Amino acid sequence: MLKTPDDVHIRKAQVADHPVVIDIVKATKFFYPVEIEVACEVFDEAAMQKPGCNYRSYVAQVHGQVAGWICFGATPCTLGTFDIYWIAVDPAQQRNRIGSQLLDFAEMKIREHKGRMIVIETSSSKKFLPTRNFYERNGYTLAAEVKEFYAPGDDKWIFLKKLLYED
Amino acid sequence: MLKTPDDVHIRKAQVADHPVVIDIVKATKFFYPVEIEVACEVFDEAAMQKPGCNYRSYVAQVHGQVAGWICFGATPCTLGTFDIYWIAVDPAQQRNRIGSQLLDFAEMKIREHKGRMIVIETSSSKKFLPTRNFYERNGYTLAAEVKEFYAPGDDKWIFLKKLLYED
Repeated sequence: MLKTPDDVHIRKAQVADHPVVIDIVKATKFFYPVEIEVACEVFDEAAMQKPGCNYRSYVAQVHGQVAGWICFGATPCTLGTFDIYWIAVDPAQQRNRIGSQLLDFAEMKIREHKGRMIVIETSSSKKFLPTRNFYERNGYTLAAEVKEFYAPGDDKWIFLKKLLYED
Repeated sequence: MLKTPDDVHIRKAQVADHPVVIDIVKATKFFYPVEIEVACEVFDEAAMQKPGCNYRSYVAQVHGQVAGWICFGATPCTLGTFDIYWIAVDPAQQRNRIGSQLLDFAEMKIREHKGRMIVIETSSSKKFLPTRNFYERNGYTLAAEVKEFYAPGDDKWIFLKKLLYED
């Protein structure tokens, strides 16, 4: 049975969280420098909470320390579809179900906004196998793939989760 | 044989083109109000050409009048993949191959940036059948679909074109 820390606290990400969140994104070793730049842009845009900004960005704190980040939002030009754009957990904390708790939290928020479906896009590369397993364990299903999307030999896999509601 | 007007001129879109471009987007009757809002945001962001902006935005003029718009850009976090985000042609001009000329122009620009692949995402709905036929006539192939992406019963179809280069 996986350990569930009972002192995980999820709160809105703030501008001041930038350094620790980006350190976590880097520490995962999943992302190329250009992707880390995109993470910085997305993080800052979300944290500034300008009107019309589509990103919702939250951090998980464990014992008062930021240990993970999730960023999601309503997919433009859709009715009720949401994208989870970024999720990253401090490698030192990855056995503590923080990723799953961040996903659960995002799903709760998406339900509050009457979201119908969640999309997560990820790479087919071997490096991302644990990530894909993580999504599948959390109820996401591989729904489509776009060959060579990220780079030659590196496909995009599109995972979906449909949110059900009781009548 | 299709008529090819020889006085089509393609140039960078400018802030001042906003009203006529958005009138064209509306006149196509393809887009919902919320999508037209997104078109406005994308158009303005592209026209302002801020550093780091990923959008490239061009208009086609016929007899000095703006008759079509295309917006494309390098897909973030990919190597050599480009997205064509928006294409719209004045319905009064749609038999003049302006759409194909805008696509050809975008492909030329994408080749200049060593683009490897072009992605176009569109709706599976009946209304978009002419659009899908237009992409297929121009060498784009349906590569993946994401069920119910846009709305219940409205799937996302992902078209691709691989750009080949001579050695």
